[in-house]
Amino acid sequence: MKQITGGVTAAKGFMAASVEAGVKYKNRKDMAMVYSQIPCMAAGVFTTNVVKAAPVLWDKKIVTESAAAHAVIVNSGIANACTGKQGFDYCEQTAQAASEALGIPADSVLVCSTGVIGMQLPIDRITEGTKKLAGVLSDTTEAGDQAAQAIMTTDTVPKQVAVEIEIGGKTVTVGGMCKGSGMIHPNMCTMLAFVTTDAAISKELLQEALSEDVVDTFNMVSVDGDTSTNDTLLVLANGCAGNEMITEKNADYETFKAALHYINETLAKKIAEDGEGATALFEAKVVNADTKQNARILAKSVITSSLTKAAIFGHDCNFGRILCALGYSGVQFDPESIELYLESEAGRILIFKDGYATDYSEEEATKVLSAPAVTAYVDMKMGQESATAWGCDLSYDYVKINADYRS
Amino acid sequence: MKQITGGVTAAKGFMAASVEAGVKYKNRKDMAMVYSQIPCMAAGVFTTNVVKAAPVLWDKKIVTESAAAHAVIVNSGIANACTGKQGFDYCEQTAQAASEALGIPADSVLVCSTGVIGMQLPIDRITEGTKKLAGVLSDTTEAGDQAAQAIMTTDTVPKQVAVEIEIGGKTVTVGGMCKGSGMIHPNMCTMLAFVTTDAAISKELLQEALSEDVVDTFNMVSVDGDTSTNDTLLVLANGCAGNEMITEKNADYETFKAALHYINETLAKKIAEDGEGATALFEAKVVNADTKQNARILAKSVITSSLTKAAIFGHDCNFGRILCALGYSGVQFDPESIELYLESEAGRILIFKDGYATDYSEEEATKVLSAPAVTAYVDMKMGQESATAWGCDLSYDYVKINADYRS
Repeated sequence: MKQITGGVTAAKGFMAASVEAGVKYKNRKDMAMVYSQIPCMAAGVFTTNVVKAAPVLWDKKIVTESAAAHAVIVNSGIANACTGKQGFDYCEQTAQAASEALGIPADSVLVCSTGVIGMQLPIDRITEGTKKLAGVLSDTTEAGDQAAQAIMTTDTVPKQVAVEIEIGGKTVTVGGMCKGSGMIHPNMCTMLAFVTTDAAISKELLQEALSEDVVDTFNMVSVDGDTSTNDTLLVLANGCAGNEMITEKNADYETFKAALHYINETLAKKIAEDGEGATALFEAKVVNADTKQNARILAKSVITSSLTKAAIFGHDCNFGRILCALGYSGVQFDPESIELYLESEAGRILIFKDGYATDYSEEEATKVLSAPAVTAYVDMKMGQESATAWGCDLSYDYVKINADYRS
Repeated sequence: MKQITGGVTAAKGFMAASVEAGVKYKNRKDMAMVYSQIPCMAAGVFTTNVVKAAPVLWDKKIVTESAAAHAVIVNSGIANACTGKQGFDYCEQTAQAASEALGIPADSVLVCSTGVIGMQLPIDRITEGTKKLAGVLSDTTEAGDQAAQAIMTTDTVPKQVAVEIEIGGKTVTVGGMCKGSGMIHPNMCTMLAFVTTDAAISKELLQEALSEDVVDTFNMVSVDGDTSTNDTLLVLANGCAGNEMITEKNADYETFKAALHYINETLAKKIAEDGEGATALFEAKVVNADTKQNARILAKSVITSSLTKAAIFGHDCNFGRILCALGYSGVQFDPESIELYLESEAGRILIFKDGYATDYSEEEATKVLSAPAVTAYVDMKMGQESATAWGCDLSYDYVKINADYRS
């Protein structure tokens, strides 16, 4: 597996476009399109929130019922959530506009929105934007870069990654882009993520690979504990790589799955790292838990704790908050037998063992905690299962961003 | 029921004391004692965190196994949590010191701590403080006030309340004090709460009344979603009111329970209102839910949402975040059928109905949201059950307090 530059346009046959549609923001691109020159197998995972945005309902239908997917239209600024039947009709109108502009079936068009909840889309500007998008499609890296920019809301950086693998002698590419960065606690995911690949793979296996992988990647990320109404992760596979179609769980499937995992994990970490107001990536690695599910619950409880996140922001070794978060996770364990380490590029320190704090140096600990990426490493000493979760610190800026996000 | 002034010393036979023991803070009282002149029935509810502080383990034992309780010793500054066997031994030594100073059995002494996790208590100063406390006991309102001050950590105000009721022609008093104000998401419950009463009631009924009531009072409060290692709520009943002992669930029991509920709910709301960095009390009232438990889950999900809390801080009617929080609570419902109102002393506004935002005035909404206490009122239209939860907004000061709490 080799990481290459680019994102959604890296795989053969994929194009992207972005325009200023004036949905809500001024003087910035706010609509993007991802388009495959030939029809794709599509797989998707969506928010588990009972309050699902209209585009989530639309896309679930397309992924489940349509034979193929051809394009994805995305707008930032307004989430099209809590918008009733009108919101769903607007998804259909957007797909219809894309259908006419691109000469593809309307039921092969996926639609995604991110932004403020409860506001109706300015549908005229959306359909106008869709037509413009169709006119500026390009397969260049720049087109992918700009699409990744257009889908941002409070994100501070565009997020994309791509890799090349080899399947049956053919070079296969998997690339993706996503956006965060608040209301992030995916439980598939205001997270939107799009992965494109030129691999030839059956729809069933594509969905299975995605559904399995999301559990240990996007679902292990949290910025603020709020599971959005819009979380969507879509994968489009158009087969342009020319590999023999993957239809069973053979070595080719495993190779593809490893690449998909790398793309998903990298994008997921980018979301955590760029969480609203974040100054540091905060990772929790739980090892030697009794079950995989318990390892996941423990790791996620630590990166979700507001108190722990505030301590990370303060570079304060208030390790009791980590133990506290493990303790209320719902998982049973003996606090006296666990070991807690803090680690970063600045070093690794054993903080707690045998029920007592070690006599670690506060100065050293502050150094470790002042790095741009900090890991809490917890050895449960109960079994052999491990899991990693990714979050970020809780800063003044998180509050600032969210106290006046709509203004 | 009549509210009167005072707290833990309001009921007959109860005394309180507070001293500067120098546990961690300088130049402030940091130890308190509550003492009954005659032995009490004791009931308690404690944190469900797997990582339980040493005093929680000690108090559970006393409440369960001892025939009577006589005194409670509390220190602020250090939580005596994650302190191993030594931490538990320190509880025993504290009880022993109280036993000698007061001439009561060591197993009738309850011990509570609140503050930083993972640090050992300076036991010499604690036992010295305990002896001093025994020397300055008083049944005055002032003694109660000062005890309520001594147990504060990041709290900005002392919290206490007392009421009088009549049982069998006798005046019975129930009073209490508590402290918050971070790591608050009680799930019995760094919350400590102490209720004293001169009612005569059997130990079994006292515990039952407490365990039942806590579900709709302290357990419906959240400041930051972190369930502490130390949460403890103790009730001491010494029978000094002279009422006929309550030993069955008769009208007297209901009268007592109503008074206990008033004390618990008032103290619980005071904790939410004084949450770390809070500028407003934020209440969620869910009505017409299908089950009581679902009503509780929905209400708690709203007051726990970081995004909603930040919007309340900004006086921003970002109501989509409330719908989002209802949606990810785990409870199933039809988003199109619910009604959402925002209310405060400044007015009441219908915000969302039939799947759509109403055309409410943003100016009016901002006015409602700028009050010191704001309620989100949600009508689920599914049944007849209701619940109320109490939280607070998320401000810059929450981050500030918790980024450098230990310093």
